[in-house]
Amino acid sequence: MRPIKSALLTAAIAGVIGTAQAIEWQALPEVAPAPADNPTTDAKVELGKMLFFDPRFSSTGTVSCFSCHNVMEGGDDHRPTSVGVHGQLGGRNAPTVWNSAFHSVQFWDGRAASLEDQSKGPPVNPIEMGMSDLQATLNRLRAIPGYKPYFEKAFGPGDTITVENAAKAVAAYERTLITPNSPYDRYVKGDKAAMTQQQVAGMQTFDSVGCTSCHNGPNFNGPSLPTGQGFFMKFPTFADNAYVSEYKLMDDNGRMEVTHQASDAHLWRVPTLRNLEYTAPYMHTGTVKTMDEAVRVMAKTQLNKDLADTEVKGIVAFLGALSGEFPEQTMPRLPATPGDLIK
Amino acid sequence: MRPIKSALLTAAIAGVIGTAQAIEWQALPEVAPAPADNPTTDAKVELGKMLFFDPRFSSTGTVSCFSCHNVMEGGDDHRPTSVGVHGQLGGRNAPTVWNSAFHSVQFWDGRAASLEDQSKGPPVNPIEMGMSDLQATLNRLRAIPGYKPYFEKAFGPGDTITVENAAKAVAAYERTLITPNSPYDRYVKGDKAAMTQQQVAGMQTFDSVGCTSCHNGPNFNGPSLPTGQGFFMKFPTFADNAYVSEYKLMDDNGRMEVTHQASDAHLWRVPTLRNLEYTAPYMHTGTVKTMDEAVRVMAKTQLNKDLADTEVKGIVAFLGALSGEFPEQTMPRLPATPGDLIK
Repeated sequence: MRPIKSALLTAAIAGVIGTAQAIEWQALPEVAPAPADNPTTDAKVELGKMLFFDPRFSSTGTVSCFSCHNVMEGGDDHRPTSVGVHGQLGGRNAPTVWNSAFHSVQFWDGRAASLEDQSKGPPVNPIEMGMSDLQATLNRLRAIPGYKPYFEKAFGPGDTITVENAAKAVAAYERTLITPNSPYDRYVKGDKAAMTQQQVAGMQTFDSVGCTSCHNGPNFNGPSLPTGQGFFMKFPTFADNAYVSEYKLMDDNGRMEVTHQASDAHLWRVPTLRNLEYTAPYMHTGTVKTMDEAVRVMAKTQLNKDLADTEVKGIVAFLGALSGEFPEQTMPRLPATPGDLIK
Repeated sequence: MRPIKSALLTAAIAGVIGTAQAIEWQALPEVAPAPADNPTTDAKVELGKMLFFDPRFSSTGTVSCFSCHNVMEGGDDHRPTSVGVHGQLGGRNAPTVWNSAFHSVQFWDGRAASLEDQSKGPPVNPIEMGMSDLQATLNRLRAIPGYKPYFEKAFGPGDTITVENAAKAVAAYERTLITPNSPYDRYVKGDKAAMTQQQVAGMQTFDSVGCTSCHNGPNFNGPSLPTGQGFFMKFPTFADNAYVSEYKLMDDNGRMEVTHQASDAHLWRVPTLRNLEYTAPYMHTGTVKTMDEAVRVMAKTQLNKDLADTEVKGIVAFLGALSGEFPEQTMPRLPATPGDLIK
């Protein structure tokens, strides 16, 4: 992963990117791109949805992907930080899985290059799903006979129940989790009645004060980059304000925890701004409870600006226009459990 | 609740009920009866499904009805006993929610008269959902503005967001959780090819050895009784065998914990036998891992019989014919979370 932070940071602070002239407003695609070695198929999506909802791949049999990424709501868990096996608390706010296919790296610190890679993390995280290793996860999977026909349908006959194929299936399902046709999307496609006047004004403010320096592109998480190449930004960039201690914004070193480079301290992947009304509380800390406050915090810490109340309200109204259409989904049917699976 | 245990216990032990001559094999109804004050409507079912899946009515925001009653599988949680908030362990195996509408009392000890009453238990159980009281649960519900239109649709305009209405909605949803058209159901309706020869033979053994003394009726949980009148049986009836200590069958006093009557010691509601292949492990303890062993344990503890292997295999084959059709369900869409809902 080659970080491109330096040039962009400089540009952002100087205000070169994200001026009203430069911004190109883009709608969310209705289909996510898939890697060449994992084209999205109906059979993979079906299997991936089963795996996503199945709690039997956690040590206690109680935690699934769905536990912290509630696709019946905002794709997160509405908690400051998540709860894993044995009631343990995670360290960061769960990012939404909705539109995660439009991130070029995964996790807040970008430590996974792809959705496939990401899916292999939580099962073996001792705080999250708590399995001893991926082999143990695979053993659980193979001990449920009802999964075999679904793997064969998705990946062909023979011994296709592997960690790599399970990861591919989960990623394929996640690539279907897209929320198109928000008022914003319809507006930029030409339906000028799709947003209110306040939202249109808020959109202009959002751009003119500099939010679009980082939050640009179809998913409002920065430029479209190749898979594995992250778009990171320092947060807080301006640390000389009361928000930093109030919301514990510097207690976590961010990307530095992965790279162990001092220059990566407090660098974070720029998150999407879509469906924010469903994903409170906010920030990697989950310490900021409302969108109003999140806008104030970001303006101060990233742009060194104190916004007027009308500016805040306009931007929040605009952010509300980024809530899209959640596709109707059927529940998966999970295969029967052998009695000795969970001790 | 007027227990009818004495007469039935005597009858069961004497073998008066459940002889091959007496048994009337009944198919599962496709619609569950509803109480006069809570007729099932689409609007209640829709709201009830939302509430059933919503984890925000637990103290941590992590536990919903669905957590322990996984309707994507067998309606339980495939664990010996369940896990609630803060990783706490419950004391009994989670009963399936599938076909629970055909139980005349709820919980293993029958302490709730109806599905409506049952639904008010887990939210305030300190081990399960851990809310301080139902008022606190109601406060959470009222703090999510998106629920209001669904309550109005189900219960009319005005202040209809109440604990009673929430309970009615959850119960209405649960009354739709029925698994008809199992091979057994099709067989008793006249399709003699619906069960295998082994299953038919197992059905005869199931009756002739005496299982039908208790496990009779359309849901194999005893006679159809008025709501609130339980069908309880002593388990173990014959305690002089190694299973009792091996599977801890007498560590829990059962219904006596509710009534505080010594005569109710080790009395339990007779559970359904439908969809057993999805609900391992078995018994109120969750200590018996396979259906084979469960059949042996029940024959010994309730009928004082040591079954031959062929009898066990036949009965297990028959029990497999009790797995019905799980209706396809769409996922509910849950309303957005105010940022300060979960601290």
